Amino acid sequence: MNLEAILDGVRADVSGHIGEGKVADYIPALAKVDPSKFGMAIVTVDGDAFTIGDAAEPFSIQSVSKVFTLTLALGRVGEGLWKRVGREPSGTPFNSIVQLEQEHGIPRNPFINAGAIVVADTLLSGHEPRETLGEVLSFMRHISGDEGIVIDREVARSEQQTGFRNAALANYMFSFSNIHNPVEKTLGVYFHQCALSLSCIQLAKAGLFLANNGKLGGSNHSVVSAERARRINALMLTCGHYDASGDFAFRVGLPGKSGVGGGILAIAPGRAAIAVWSPGLNANGNSATGTRALESLARRTGWSIFG
Amino acid sequence: MNLEAILDGVRADVSGHIGEGKVADYIPALAKVDPSKFGMAIVTVDGDAFTIGDAAEPFSIQSVSKVFTLTLALGRVGEGLWKRVGREPSGTPFNSIVQLEQEHGIPRNPFINAGAIVVADTLLSGHEPRETLGEVLSFMRHISGDEGIVIDREVARSEQQTGFRNAALANYMFSFSNIHNPVEKTLGVYFHQCALSLSCIQLAKAGLFLANNGKLGGSNHSVVSAERARRINALMLTCGHYDASGDFAFRVGLPGKSGVGGGILAIAPGRAAIAVWSPGLNANGNSATGTRALESLARRTGWSIFG
Amino acid sequence: MNLEAILDGVRADVSGHIGEGKVADYIPALAKVDPSKFGMAIVTVDGDAFTIGDAAEPFSIQSVSKVFTLTLALGRVGEGLWKRVGREPSGTPFNSIVQLEQEHGIPRNPFINAGAIVVADTLLSGHEPRETLGEVLSFMRHISGDEGIVIDREVARSEQQTGFRNAALANYMFSFSNIHNPVEKTLGVYFHQCALSLSCIQLAKAGLFLANNGKLGGSNHSVVSAERARRINALMLTCGHYDASGDFAFRVGLPGKSGVGGGILAIAPGRAAIAVWSPGLNANGNSATGTRALESLARRTGWSIFG
Amino acid sequence: MNLEAILDGVRADVSGHIGEGKVADYIPALAKVDPSKFGMAIVTVDGDAFTIGDAAEPFSIQSVSKVFTLTLALGRVGEGLWKRVGREPSGTPFNSIVQLEQEHGIPRNPFINAGAIVVADTLLSGHEPRETLGEVLSFMRHISGDEGIVIDREVARSEQQTGFRNAALANYMFSFSNIHNPVEKTLGVYFHQCALSLSCIQLAKAGLFLANNGKLGGSNHSVVSAERARRINALMLTCGHYDASGDFAFRVGLPGKSGVGGGILAIAPGRAAIAVWSPGLNANGNSATGTRALESLARRTGWSIFG
Repeated sequence: MNLEAILDGVRADVSGHIGEGKVADYIPALAKVDPSKFGMAIVTVDGDAFTIGDAAEPFSIQSVSKVFTLTLALGRVGEGLWKRVGREPSGTPFNSIVQLEQEHGIPRNPFINAGAIVVADTLLSGHEPRETLGEVLSFMRHISGDEGIVIDREVARSEQQTGFRNAALANYMFSFSNIHNPVEKTLGVYFHQCALSLSCIQLAKAGLFLANNGKLGGSNHSVVSAERARRINALMLTCGHYDASGDFAFRVGLPGKSGVGGGILAIAPGRAAIAVWSPGLNANGNSATGTRALESLARRTGWSIFG
Repeated sequence: MNLEAILDGVRADVSGHIGEGKVADYIPALAKVDPSKFGMAIVTVDGDAFTIGDAAEPFSIQSVSKVFTLTLALGRVGEGLWKRVGREPSGTPFNSIVQLEQEHGIPRNPFINAGAIVVADTLLSGHEPRETLGEVLSFMRHISGDEGIVIDREVARSEQQTGFRNAALANYMFSFSNIHNPVEKTLGVYFHQCALSLSCIQLAKAGLFLANNGKLGGSNHSVVSAERARRINALMLTCGHYDASGDFAFRVGLPGKSGVGGGILAIAPGRAAIAVWSPGLNANGNSATGTRALESLARRTGWSIFG
Repeated sequence: MNLEAILDGVRADVSGHIGEGKVADYIPALAKVDPSKFGMAIVTVDGDAFTIGDAAEPFSIQSVSKVFTLTLALGRVGEGLWKRVGREPSGTPFNSIVQLEQEHGIPRNPFINAGAIVVADTLLSGHEPRETLGEVLSFMRHISGDEGIVIDREVARSEQQTGFRNAALANYMFSFSNIHNPVEKTLGVYFHQCALSLSCIQLAKAGLFLANNGKLGGSNHSVVSAERARRINALMLTCGHYDASGDFAFRVGLPGKSGVGGGILAIAPGRAAIAVWSPGLNANGNSATGTRALESLARRTGWSIFG
Repeated sequence: MNLEAILDGVRADVSGHIGEGKVADYIPALAKVDPSKFGMAIVTVDGDAFTIGDAAEPFSIQSVSKVFTLTLALGRVGEGLWKRVGREPSGTPFNSIVQLEQEHGIPRNPFINAGAIVVADTLLSGHEPRETLGEVLSFMRHISGDEGIVIDREVARSEQQTGFRNAALANYMFSFSNIHNPVEKTLGVYFHQCALSLSCIQLAKAGLFLANNGKLGGSNHSVVSAERARRINALMLTCGHYDASGDFAFRVGLPGKSGVGGGILAIAPGRAAIAVWSPGLNANGNSATGTRALESLARRTGWSIFG
């Protein structure tokens, strides 16, 4: 399969749609991103990498980070994590608090904000946020094989100053004893993980283990077991795009996780990890052109997991 | 792959769990089913069939029928169907009416009751229920290659006499103009499709086109396009098990659709269709031992779509 | 107190607002009502009557009828009624089905549609709708002292043909065993009671027992005990205006019950019953100018029950 | 009317029920209160006071304080307050966050927690919590004519340490721009106002202006206008007992406001203010025996506002 040619085809398919959607503007650092950016990277399980556009330019991965903190937390506490967070699609927006009230402080899944805050709380477990964030950063650098990955402190600070709804979620779950550390510390970890800054090529490399039976690309080193990789992929498929997860599965047919920075990580099991970046968001808060590009890629490659 | 040996392994895995769960008892015809029944059938895209247990005994497929009426309706009205029914997991029980109020009479997906009632309404479109049901029956016989498939009239009659919650859903959607035929007629179609009676082997054959790029087994005859087959599979994955769809994807990793009769149809794209039957249901209304058997099968075959 | 002069003052207060609001248009019989109609009647516990405007013209009292069927049902089954219907404001629109799902088929109060349908079901209790409606009509004629009160058959027929949301509510409650008669019969009673046609003067006379310690005006004949009259007044105050009950209490300060025909019955305990009619409805489905007129009347008379 | 004899009758009516219900135990300071306490005080508009039991012993008035901060806030910002908080019963528990999400951060009424936090925010308006609390305390001392009223600092500190659900509500409303001061400061005011400590006799005196057309007892000094007093009474009637407001109106028939400390303030317009205290709470979080005592009092005096 000529992935270079396929990427050219994808570019042709989306060229009339670059800049569509609405850039997230709730913090200045995100609002000022150039809406015409577009990048895509494919890293295959054989270790080959293919890119188009702005694939080497770092962007704020935001909620895509939830995939990696979930992986870390499962490594730390194992399947016991599922006592504190569910595995079902939510049927509600990413920051809804209604479901928490009806289900007594247990978030529906680890990819909505409330669930990711619980995951961050798990990682913290009595340590200082600085230590936990150091661990997250080491993990990202390790799995991507790139020591250059950083957290954007300006973004993190802005998140912290405007994150009152996330503070509401955290305090609310604390009242149900489902946050175990001081709320400010748990939120500190959460806001900083969202501020991780990666390029498409770094992000695809970081996610490759999910396409590669849990192993690092070009090695036999296991990040997680093959079964756990499958399960994380299943969660991405059912819950990775908030209340548009069904639509993404229908149109693209690959496990994926989006972020409000306009990035999406998608996994073609046994084949490749794909990262795409285009800042404009659709009505559900997912990258408009990024989704379109993945739809084109899935059609051109036949990589859909559904046949 | 020795599917015969694998089925023996599955049987061994579940043997201590036959009879677990609670048999649906809202109508006498379902309540009197022997809870110790267990059958499983695999039909591969090459046309081979493998069975264990009570795989030849017909049972009430109930909501599994929603997969087939959806297929028919898409053939009839095409993608325009999605104006009247969504494609997102619901986050609520199968017969919830709350979501309908919040979303103005548009059901979340075609696999919850409200959505399947809209699909039935689409099929009816001005005809008499008898004609539409004749068409459904012809379709089932055609895709399974089995003229012996019937509708259990006793079950249908019982459903009709006790289906007040479904009547509520239908009247409610009618008030939003999302049911176009007289409510009784649409419900007549719906209650009868749920009463379709198939054995595991018939059900696996009927579902095979979804594993086979939309084509009938052992032929080049297309039931639907390959793309449509993928999309129906995607819907089964995200929405096929009501509010336990995420859990089924996590544990089994195959598109599937369950019914309260204890049957589940699962699809391994490019490989096989699998049907399992065990009447006892878990708390979410899905076959307890059937789910367990599919989990075992997916592990033993490595057929998970997630890696 | 010169009630004649006060009514003139009220008329002056509302004169610039006649015709405001939106006439209910879900059935033709209501849609064709002249929006410029305005009438008001006060009947005191001493038996004096005062009117302005179109106070002698019959209109469809719709949900105001719920006060009278509740009175009849309490007479029939006593306080046991409260096992099947609550006494709390709903916090939702008049025809919401959400609350019913959360509270297992028990409507919040007898003045939302679901609650009034349960009340109608109580009255029916095995009889034919025709008999029950005869009883309702006799009761209305008895308490108003006016044999001319009738049910508008055209309105009732229209309601029946368009009442799919009410049919949804009834079927839904039936599925929770909170409707005991065949759904069509219970709905038949409900749709016909809503089609009762009374003038302001007839309506004020019919409601007078609630202002008069449960007794008919100018007599010692008790319709209900003084305690029951107080309790019905309390329910009207907290639940009589759907999701605007708080606002009506705040602005008017009298127990009241509205209907989509534009009528409102208000009670000044120990003093008088007041009926007002103006077809245009506000956003909450209550008569816009009728509410304004009662606000003016309460201010001018000092009849607020709150001081 | 011999109120002394009536209070003796009330005492007889409730004597077998002293100690019923469950004492609030979410903070130690409340949990350690003796459940067998019972006190009641009536202060008439003529200035006479009648008491039974522990009517002179201070207790934590908790949410009863919401009546007084609302009064202060209306004095400060006038009817503009209603842009930030509604006037409708909520149909949900006192600390529900669901309604806030559906209604975009506008609490349903000033007597649920979220509403009272907005009211506290209004009072704060840029000042330091200490100053605002000084003002609240002055107001309480002024209207009760008792300089001995204090805030229980231990209770306030406990509230602050355990108030994560209230912190969730405040952060959530902040995210909708309906809290204008730093969340900690607004919560500081709220937690301290809840810790106001008054005896029944002090509380009845403080509330007397609501029974007295807005005027202080035995004087012509207006705390609020007669119209505002009526409106606050209306709010107490429809919203003063959380999701049991309808039941309280039905059984007692007086405007009232309860607190989890077991106190209730009730108003008999034109007649008297009544305070009752009994720490055991019913399922809705209102004083069990306190409600019973008020029911007895209303029956014995005939003070119901409903006839």
